[in-house]
Amino acid sequence: MKINGTPYRSVWINEKDGWSVHIFDQTRLPFSLDILQLTSAQDVAHAIRTMQVRGAPLIGAVAAYGLALALRHESSDTAMEEQAVMLAATRPTAINLRWAIDRMLAHLRPLPADKRVAAAYAEAGRICDEDAAQNEAIGRHGLSLIRDIAKTKPAGSQINLLTHCNAGWIATVDWGTALAPIYMAHDEGLNVHVWVDETRPRNQGAALTAWELGSHGVPHTVIADNAGGHLMQHGQVDMVIVGTDRVTRTGDVANKIGTYLKALAAQDNAVPFWVALPSTTIDWTVANGVTEIPIEERSGSEITHISGRDERGTLSKVQITPDGSKAANPAFDVTPARLVTGLITERGCCAATEDGLKSLFPEQ
Amino acid sequence: MKINGTPYRSVWINEKDGWSVHIFDQTRLPFSLDILQLTSAQDVAHAIRTMQVRGAPLIGAVAAYGLALALRHESSDTAMEEQAVMLAATRPTAINLRWAIDRMLAHLRPLPADKRVAAAYAEAGRICDEDAAQNEAIGRHGLSLIRDIAKTKPAGSQINLLTHCNAGWIATVDWGTALAPIYMAHDEGLNVHVWVDETRPRNQGAALTAWELGSHGVPHTVIADNAGGHLMQHGQVDMVIVGTDRVTRTGDVANKIGTYLKALAAQDNAVPFWVALPSTTIDWTVANGVTEIPIEERSGSEITHISGRDERGTLSKVQITPDGSKAANPAFDVTPARLVTGLITERGCCAATEDGLKSLFPEQ
Repeated sequence: MKINGTPYRSVWINEKDGWSVHIFDQTRLPFSLDILQLTSAQDVAHAIRTMQVRGAPLIGAVAAYGLALALRHESSDTAMEEQAVMLAATRPTAINLRWAIDRMLAHLRPLPADKRVAAAYAEAGRICDEDAAQNEAIGRHGLSLIRDIAKTKPAGSQINLLTHCNAGWIATVDWGTALAPIYMAHDEGLNVHVWVDETRPRNQGAALTAWELGSHGVPHTVIADNAGGHLMQHGQVDMVIVGTDRVTRTGDVANKIGTYLKALAAQDNAVPFWVALPSTTIDWTVANGVTEIPIEERSGSEITHISGRDERGTLSKVQITPDGSKAANPAFDVTPARLVTGLITERGCCAATEDGLKSLFPEQ
Repeated sequence: MKINGTPYRSVWINEKDGWSVHIFDQTRLPFSLDILQLTSAQDVAHAIRTMQVRGAPLIGAVAAYGLALALRHESSDTAMEEQAVMLAATRPTAINLRWAIDRMLAHLRPLPADKRVAAAYAEAGRICDEDAAQNEAIGRHGLSLIRDIAKTKPAGSQINLLTHCNAGWIATVDWGTALAPIYMAHDEGLNVHVWVDETRPRNQGAALTAWELGSHGVPHTVIADNAGGHLMQHGQVDMVIVGTDRVTRTGDVANKIGTYLKALAAQDNAVPFWVALPSTTIDWTVANGVTEIPIEERSGSEITHISGRDERGTLSKVQITPDGSKAANPAFDVTPARLVTGLITERGCCAATEDGLKSLFPEQ
């Protein structure tokens, strides 16, 4: 996607050296567009842990390059397996991370050590290209859902979508998952408007989704996470569309904390609740999302302190809780499949059920 | 209640001059305990509009003193009615404001102008005393609900309560509504722990409820508003208890934006959802909360900017959204009565229904 007219992906190889890895520092957006250069698996692990890169598909892609960087350093079986374990452990909830590492290892294990670096870069590149292509396909399938909503309303009237967290192009390699259909709808002239949940505690909605949508010219309004239910009660939301970090084979959806509350409100107000995902986000080994998906607990300091741009124009933090009050910070929740209208995948839309998913992915 | 051992109410008359009105500046808590002196109805209106005082019962009490201050300036019929209208218009959602002004006017209108000032102070004082007494009664009735939960758990094990926004003693004249039973439970040795929703956008939970509970020694943990559903899914909430700004005669509950989402999650997980209120919060004229209660729209700047204590130790604001992204800020939502387990009033607990309320308030 474009930033001020220049096309970018969210991860790319340095053109001059041909091996170091570039990402945007997402902890500094929207106020500063800083490009980081990662030169080791440790750099990659740090970037994932500190959420300089985040978003389930992007984490997988960057981790794949992390393994390539590790192999540049040492390409023995032992080193490769160790670094793979290290990278896979950086965050627990998104399944794409484990998927990407497993795919890299399956590709690399049969190769002799001296062929692994080149093969790793090539495979990571394919993971990136496939992710971009899958998301573009998700965009097309989601676009028809938005077109269907448009048909139910007076011509030209506003279509109000609500999204939580950031499942846009910077959460993936390109296009995004939940936002891909919205970009396409906007580009073909549909009058879409997006309610952007700010998404406490890290404000990925307020900081990243608002920045993405604004950069692309999509009308949007930032709201407190608390507001979505009220808007739905008053007919101001036509559709909810979110991304996900892991979908069980039964259609349960792990996503950013608070997604479950929006799904409950959507159901209570008969608002369609769709989840957009590349198939790399499906965990075919898990049946019960609430009991089986590990939920990352992040630092309480993400609750007690908020980052933003201060009056001097610099990024700084303010404390919002009293000294001595502790905080808890579960980073994800699980929306049971019964609350999900459907899943939008690169192969089309399906019910959030085992049968629905199997109908699109019969090879599983 | 006490701050560092000294008993306070949330509004009181200056002991030396006998007429000016003191409040805490709640926009500066928890980092600074500033006592303001209000000397005119305009001061009171400003304090209510800017949320230096907030909380439905406290707004009513302070507005009552605002009318007394207005009458000191001019006590004619015309002036009194004009100032009453001005004060009643400061905030639209909480019904206690209108109730307190109406009660004051009913008491003052029959009196000659030269008797009104003294009568106004006396009546405002009675409103305050009654609010404190009602909240103490609410505390006792709510306490038995907490005792009942304790009986269902192994002796001494933690009782986890969740609350949204601030319905504590500084939202009322004394004791609080939702927090009154919690203070009493803690004081009698029950092992209560409170999940404190931070309550974006103004963070009344993170700033005020956490400060109140911490000052009283009640164990608590601040969470993002997004987290409550996840905690309920995992059995970590035994009861939700919130305050309210207006309850319809049918039991619908207007309260801080986001309350509705917690009520949905409570229902989905069979967690009891109780609402604590003095009867001054009941609007007997309204039957349908969602369509009839006016919902205050506050400035989008409360979303785009967050106040807190910066690294230099001073209160400051940081911007969290990109320049050019607008924000919407509905301040309240309505929880339909069907999601409310029951209401806790000064006369006892009842179902959130017209019959339930009439059983406690047959005179209505």
